[in-house]
Amino acid sequence: MTIYNAPHQDAIFVLDQLVGLDQMAADYQLEDTSLELADVVIQEAGKLASDVLAPLNAQGDKQGAQLVDNKVVQTPGYAEAYQQYVENGWATLTGPVEFGGQGLPHVLGTAVNELWHSANMAFALCPMLSQGAVEALIAHGSDELQQRYLAQLISGEWAGTMNLTEPNAGSDLAAVACKATPDGEQYRIRGQKIFITWGDHQMTSNIIHLVLARLPDAPAGVKGISLFLVPKFLLDDQGQPGELNDVRCISLEHKLGIHASPTCTMSFGDNDGAIGYLIGEPNKGLNYMFTMMNHARQAVGLQGLSISERAYQQALAFAKERTQGTNKEGRKIAIIEYPDVRRMLMAMKSGCEAMRALAFTAAADIDRAHHGDQAAKARVEFFTPIVKGWMTELAQEVTSLNIQVHGGMGFVEETGAAQHYRDARILPIYEGTTGIQALDLVGRKTLSDNGAVLGQLLAEMQTDTQQLSLTGEPTLIAIATELEASLEVAQQVQDWLLTKASADRKLAGTISFDYLMMMGYLCGGWLMAKSALQASEQMSQDNRYGTPFLQGKQGTAQFFAEHYLPRARQHGQTILGGLTSTFALTIDQL
Amino acid sequence: MTIYNAPHQDAIFVLDQLVGLDQMAADYQLEDTSLELADVVIQEAGKLASDVLAPLNAQGDKQGAQLVDNKVVQTPGYAEAYQQYVENGWATLTGPVEFGGQGLPHVLGTAVNELWHSANMAFALCPMLSQGAVEALIAHGSDELQQRYLAQLISGEWAGTMNLTEPNAGSDLAAVACKATPDGEQYRIRGQKIFITWGDHQMTSNIIHLVLARLPDAPAGVKGISLFLVPKFLLDDQGQPGELNDVRCISLEHKLGIHASPTCTMSFGDNDGAIGYLIGEPNKGLNYMFTMMNHARQAVGLQGLSISERAYQQALAFAKERTQGTNKEGRKIAIIEYPDVRRMLMAMKSGCEAMRALAFTAAADIDRAHHGDQAAKARVEFFTPIVKGWMTELAQEVTSLNIQVHGGMGFVEETGAAQHYRDARILPIYEGTTGIQALDLVGRKTLSDNGAVLGQLLAEMQTDTQQLSLTGEPTLIAIATELEASLEVAQQVQDWLLTKASADRKLAGTISFDYLMMMGYLCGGWLMAKSALQASEQMSQDNRYGTPFLQGKQGTAQFFAEHYLPRARQHGQTILGGLTSTFALTIDQL
Repeated sequence: MTIYNAPHQDAIFVLDQLVGLDQMAADYQLEDTSLELADVVIQEAGKLASDVLAPLNAQGDKQGAQLVDNKVVQTPGYAEAYQQYVENGWATLTGPVEFGGQGLPHVLGTAVNELWHSANMAFALCPMLSQGAVEALIAHGSDELQQRYLAQLISGEWAGTMNLTEPNAGSDLAAVACKATPDGEQYRIRGQKIFITWGDHQMTSNIIHLVLARLPDAPAGVKGISLFLVPKFLLDDQGQPGELNDVRCISLEHKLGIHASPTCTMSFGDNDGAIGYLIGEPNKGLNYMFTMMNHARQAVGLQGLSISERAYQQALAFAKERTQGTNKEGRKIAIIEYPDVRRMLMAMKSGCEAMRALAFTAAADIDRAHHGDQAAKARVEFFTPIVKGWMTELAQEVTSLNIQVHGGMGFVEETGAAQHYRDARILPIYEGTTGIQALDLVGRKTLSDNGAVLGQLLAEMQTDTQQLSLTGEPTLIAIATELEASLEVAQQVQDWLLTKASADRKLAGTISFDYLMMMGYLCGGWLMAKSALQASEQMSQDNRYGTPFLQGKQGTAQFFAEHYLPRARQHGQTILGGLTSTFALTIDQL
Repeated sequence: MTIYNAPHQDAIFVLDQLVGLDQMAADYQLEDTSLELADVVIQEAGKLASDVLAPLNAQGDKQGAQLVDNKVVQTPGYAEAYQQYVENGWATLTGPVEFGGQGLPHVLGTAVNELWHSANMAFALCPMLSQGAVEALIAHGSDELQQRYLAQLISGEWAGTMNLTEPNAGSDLAAVACKATPDGEQYRIRGQKIFITWGDHQMTSNIIHLVLARLPDAPAGVKGISLFLVPKFLLDDQGQPGELNDVRCISLEHKLGIHASPTCTMSFGDNDGAIGYLIGEPNKGLNYMFTMMNHARQAVGLQGLSISERAYQQALAFAKERTQGTNKEGRKIAIIEYPDVRRMLMAMKSGCEAMRALAFTAAADIDRAHHGDQAAKARVEFFTPIVKGWMTELAQEVTSLNIQVHGGMGFVEETGAAQHYRDARILPIYEGTTGIQALDLVGRKTLSDNGAVLGQLLAEMQTDTQQLSLTGEPTLIAIATELEASLEVAQQVQDWLLTKASADRKLAGTISFDYLMMMGYLCGGWLMAKSALQASEQMSQDNRYGTPFLQGKQGTAQFFAEHYLPRARQHGQTILGGLTSTFALTIDQL
């Protein structure tokens, strides 16, 4: 079992220096929100994460969820932990006040969610899915549905799920075949859904499934999908869970990781048809799902940060403790002293910091968009596939480095490093694969507005780079130089995309992955550079952080610039080379 | 269960066009060796690999080796498969004729070993370790030890192991504490070894352990380590396995992958002391181990190719079969048609081809060195850490891409993609971590000869690049352009290394990983470029390959150039940036 401590000061630094939480609170008259509050909230959440959730993580890996007599039984101890999570009010953090929520900004919720996923990603998927259901109901549910379901979902008394995927409809939702037949004011849902996260369990008294299905007269393809609310237990007259609905989990996947998170095949309507309620208008299900999906995708990107942070903490602890070899005086040397081990730790730490900077920045844009900031709305749309795609890819590397730091011990399951590595592997897949994110970024988010948001972002990066140079500080200038070189390539890519790829969908698809990764490293490098600049300003003031911490921020920013920013150029060069060879071989030649 | 087919034509192409097997046979009067023979051998080996070993791979994952009553019991079916392997004479392929071997060149053995590791890496580790023991005995064993042990090890009747690591002596062998006490003409060995691959099993009638231990009067550190032969069963007067020696497996590791390969904690001398025989001279054990280790490291690098090839074949089959979405005519689209899936498959295929080119080239240099070619000897020393380090790192990516191509199915264990991913994770760790390889490359293999071998290699690459340009063929010119750009960075790195890093061991260590990876991508890109050039020449002739195959070679070479060669520059730029930030943070700041 490994120890986890919430990176409290790092989170506060980002909320303070990059997000400007106090300014946001002032801008939008968020009376309860302040950096001070964030401080308390993160510390308190950190306790639950460290003391209750983190110790259950390894147990969940060994003894995953199981299907017993048509019911999913979660890992021992998880229901009790969930109860604590609910009783302490953590589920309500960002929910609207009128339904019992605390109404705190999404960015603060993100900072707290980071901790749950670090402590126990498989567990935290359950509340994460509930949040998705809450968002969909708030955005699209009728007053009646909201009155009947929202408060209990927000309190965490009930859990929510998302039912999209079917055996023949994965990335392509046009193929959804699940049927919904009108039955008075309600509907009968019939069909099978696969890969349903926490599709069943015994942690809550009800589970509210949001299900994509087709009405009888629905048009073919994605334009004929509607969204339904299907409770596990139908509500009685008092609004309490009563009769079991016609829905059940018929099997669980045996997975590489996140064993404690039941991945269910859900069967709807084996008998009379599961009773469901239409959310919003007919045939708009896909749009509604996309509302949720932007949040869900950012949440999965955040998991990339969380599991990387957990892996980093484990690697750091091991590297300090494990000795190998002796120095001239015969003293044993901790492996943290060795240059290549230090490189790996710095790669992990700076990677985590860049991910946190990006995740919180994008989350804050969700808040700003919510308060009507149109520029923030456009930017968060652009950031979302980067947060999801790039961060989850980087998480593969960081969790792998944790194994590598451990050497042979890393390959032994008892060490626990392997679990993080296995758990992390789902992240670039669920809620849309990296390939799907990349297509979204190049198509809907770049070519469709003719590169407008991209252009603004690059211009902003350019301005910040100049500011770094103007400080005259060697470390900041070194960072600026790397950033400048990468921006130059990015600008060439921008031109290339808008001239060459805009008319050629196949070409856009071919370079999409490299574009996504280029933008990820660039955004990460830019925000790390901003951190370094802010750290420099803070150092000249009396501040809460202290000089060693602020120097550390500059060190990791420089490492990121030296180590990761060349990758932005590498991906850019691959794009500019055109990847004309991707289709050089016919299928038979492969 | 997934199908595996030996990539027979690809192997022959490398042996023919890059290695020049027929020329090698002529140069060294290897009467039995020819491309024709290689063809037959690879096809026959392919049958055993596909029909017998590959089907047992998933079984070995589910039901790994187990410790029962102080004995390790291997996965059901493995002993029978091993018997077939031995009876068909595969163990004897490269062994010396005087001890019953077939005396074929190492490069051909490498081509065949590729297949075993693709089919079943956990299984193939057993004969791989035996080969290591054979090499050590041939190089350093007394006539008597050779007479008593070699023939049975070469035939595969007995297996061999390498016992290096101890709880406190992993990468640092100076800490070896195992003791050897003289007892007449033999020795009594006492101590514990960990992470001993196939340290015990019931597949052979004896197991010959090679063990590092210290004599009573041995100097401290690596200069006091001796190498001993410790049989599991002592030989009787007829040279047959008789009484059980005082050595046993006391526990097995519970590992992330290669479950069928028992990873043993071996206890020597719990009672009277295990009887052992000194190999070669006292206190030279480390040197002897290094002899073996060069071969073993190349063998592990080869495993990186093997598991990548297996993963590629699985991804390809899935991508052809799995449909997602429909085209305008309503026809279902196989995911292989999608650009990003195609990119992933091309990345996998071109990665495998580059690895095969490098592995076989390095193996052929072992043969040439064996026949007295001093340049080849120096080059193989240089190649070894690249084969081990770079290929095993690339294997992480290729096996991960296999999961990614499968989407959600890739995360489900039954698919089998996850097994390859898990199995592969040991490769950058055992036989010296990537960090150890990187230090070896920068220190012993580059700085110690003042960059002589590196310089020759870069010059050779330069010459080949010019040759590509001179063809006037657009594809070859495109490849040459990428190679040229990467060579330019490599030459800057060469200068930087020799001036800045030669006097600063810490700095050399800091950039060592990036140097290793830069050289890996560069070597891969260079050999792929050579393949493309050879393919061009072959296309104008009547040849065995056919134009589609040869065009394919050019396509994958171009993809490698566009997709992977920019990484050589990226790593080079990181080096030239100096990675001054690696130690920017104190341990407390991490």
